[in-house]
Amino acid sequence: MKMLINTPDTLVSDALDGLACAHPDLIRVRRNPDYVIRADAPLRDRVAVVSGGGSGHEPMHVGYVGRGMLTAACPGAIFTSPTPDQILAATHEAVGDAGVLYIIKNYAGDRMNFEIAIEMITAEGIPVATVIVADDIAGPAKELRRGTGATVIVEKIAGAAAEMGASLDECARIAHHAANQSRSIGVALSACTVPSLARPSFHLDDHEIEIGIGIHGEAGWQRSTLAPVSQIIDRLCDNLRDDLNLRAGDRTLAFVNGLGATTYLELYVAFNEVARWCTTHNITIERSLVGHYMTSLNMAGCTVTLTRLDDELLRLWDAPAWTPALRWGI
Amino acid sequence: MKMLINTPDTLVSDALDGLACAHPDLIRVRRNPDYVIRADAPLRDRVAVVSGGGSGHEPMHVGYVGRGMLTAACPGAIFTSPTPDQILAATHEAVGDAGVLYIIKNYAGDRMNFEIAIEMITAEGIPVATVIVADDIAGPAKELRRGTGATVIVEKIAGAAAEMGASLDECARIAHHAANQSRSIGVALSACTVPSLARPSFHLDDHEIEIGIGIHGEAGWQRSTLAPVSQIIDRLCDNLRDDLNLRAGDRTLAFVNGLGATTYLELYVAFNEVARWCTTHNITIERSLVGHYMTSLNMAGCTVTLTRLDDELLRLWDAPAWTPALRWGI
Repeated sequence: MKMLINTPDTLVSDALDGLACAHPDLIRVRRNPDYVIRADAPLRDRVAVVSGGGSGHEPMHVGYVGRGMLTAACPGAIFTSPTPDQILAATHEAVGDAGVLYIIKNYAGDRMNFEIAIEMITAEGIPVATVIVADDIAGPAKELRRGTGATVIVEKIAGAAAEMGASLDECARIAHHAANQSRSIGVALSACTVPSLARPSFHLDDHEIEIGIGIHGEAGWQRSTLAPVSQIIDRLCDNLRDDLNLRAGDRTLAFVNGLGATTYLELYVAFNEVARWCTTHNITIERSLVGHYMTSLNMAGCTVTLTRLDDELLRLWDAPAWTPALRWGI
Repeated sequence: MKMLINTPDTLVSDALDGLACAHPDLIRVRRNPDYVIRADAPLRDRVAVVSGGGSGHEPMHVGYVGRGMLTAACPGAIFTSPTPDQILAATHEAVGDAGVLYIIKNYAGDRMNFEIAIEMITAEGIPVATVIVADDIAGPAKELRRGTGATVIVEKIAGAAAEMGASLDECARIAHHAANQSRSIGVALSACTVPSLARPSFHLDDHEIEIGIGIHGEAGWQRSTLAPVSQIIDRLCDNLRDDLNLRAGDRTLAFVNGLGATTYLELYVAFNEVARWCTTHNITIERSLVGHYMTSLNMAGCTVTLTRLDDELLRLWDAPAWTPALRWGI
C-alpha cells in the first residue's frame, strides 16, 4: 500500500501540523497531549462542545472544529481512542463558565477513555453532559451499535446550539434529540489499509460487497454480490425506515457519505437512489449532505444516514458554521 | 473494478439527477443536451461564466455552479469533451446582456468543441471572451500544457468578478491574470479505472509513482520510486517556483488537491510539506485549499497548485461563493 507520507509513525502528527498551517484563522493544534481547538477558545459564556476518536476518519473530527460546531477535538492514533489526558487538556482549554458537552461515538475504547476524563473533570466542579452516538443499525446488538455518520450531524446541531448560547442542559437535550432521530448503515466495496499494517483490513472478492460495514472494517450484516446501486440503496433505506420508524409525510436530512476512495459520481448516483426511494415512500428530503465527511482511510463504499427533521433541528442545521471541512453561512 | 452504480452507461446521467435532487436551491440540471445551470440564471446585468469538460473530475465543474462562481457547466461523458450543442444550450440559458466568459481547460477536444460553439454564439451577436487554463507544468510542451488545479481557482476568481458586476473585459482580464499566476503539477500513486473499460488506465508497480501525471492518466515526467512525501513535495515545489518565477517575499494561495482515492491525512501531510517548503523559501501562504476539488475518478495521488496572490486576486478569492462543492461567505 503506497501512501503520500513520511513514515506511518508520523502520519497523524504531520497531518495535524498541516491542518494548523492550512487553517490558522480557524483552529490551533496543541501538542503533548495532542488536540485541535478553536482559535477563539474559550468562549466564556458558551457551552464547550468536545469530541474525539481514532484518526483515519477525517475530516471527522478535527475538520469540524470551529465556529458553530466543535470547540475542540481529540484525535487518537489511527482507529484508536484518544487518551484521557488528551480529553482533559482539550477540555481545560475549551471550557468557559457554561460547562462542556462531550459527543462520544459508541465504541468501547472511546467510551472508557471519555469516562475516565469525565470523572476527573466532574471532580474539578466543571458542569458536564454527554451524548453517545450509536446510529449504525448494523451493530451486533442495540447497545453495541456503533457511532457513524450521525456523529457529523450531532456535532453540527449541538455546535449550533452552543454557538447561539443554549445552556448545557439545552445543548445536551438537542444533541440527544438529533442522535435519536438519526440512523445509518454502510456498504463497502473494498477494505481500507491501516498504514502501519500495510495490508487491507479484510478481503472482498471481485464481485463481493459487505452490507453493514463498520468504519474500521468491522464485519457487517452480510457479504453479498455486487448489485445495481438502486437495489443496494432500497435495502439500506428500507432498514433505516424500519429502525427509525419513518412514515409517509416525515421530513428528513439525507446524508450520503463516502468512505474515502469512492468517486463523487458514485456518491451522487447513490444520493439519487435515496431520493427516488424517499419519493416512493412519500418522505421529504428537506436537506442533503453528499461527500466525504467521515471516512475509513481509503475504503471504497458509502454510508447512508437519514435524520428525521423538525423545525428545531432544521434551524440548527442551517445555522452558520465555519470549520476546515464544513462551512456555510457567514 | 466495483462501483456503486446502476450501469456504466447511466453513471454520469444518474449522478446529474442526484446533483439536482441534492441541491435544488442552487442549481438546475437540463437534459438533451445536458448542462447544469444556476437556479437564478440568467442574471441580466452580470457576465455569464461558463465552463465544462469531461466527467470523472468531480466536483469540477458541475459542483462549482452557483452564486459567485460558474453560471453554467457542461459535463461531457467520462474524460470526454462536452459537445458544442451542450455549450450552446447552456450559454443561451446562462447569458444576460453582459456577455459570456468561457473557461476552457487546454485539451484538444475541449478547445475544438468550445471553438465551434463560440463561433456560433459570436455569430448571434453575443459578446464572448475566453480564457484557456494551461497550468500543468508537466505538459509535453508549453503550448500543450494541460489545464488542471488552477481551473478551480480561475473559476472562483472569475465568478467572483462577474458576481460583483465586472464587465466582460474585466472578467476576462482577471481570469487571464489568475491563470497566468498559477502553476500545478501532480503525482500519482495508482491509476484510475474508467468504468466502461473496467481496468486501470495504466500500471504502477508496488513502489512506483508517476511524477507529472495528467488528470486522465496521461504519462508525466518520470516514473520514480516512492519516497517520503517531503522529498516529493520539494521536487514539485522547486519546479513550480522555477516555472512561475516565485521569489522570496511572494504571497501565494497553496492548493493541495486529492485525485480521488487519497486520504485527507495524506493531503494534509502533503500540505504541511508545502508549507515547510514555502517557509524555507520565504514565500508566504496567505490562503489555502486542501481537499478533493478536481479528481481523476479513483486515482490515488495529488496535485499541488501555487498561485501568486496580489490584493485583487485575494479579494476575489475571499468573496462569497455558494455552490454544491465550494461555499463560503453568505
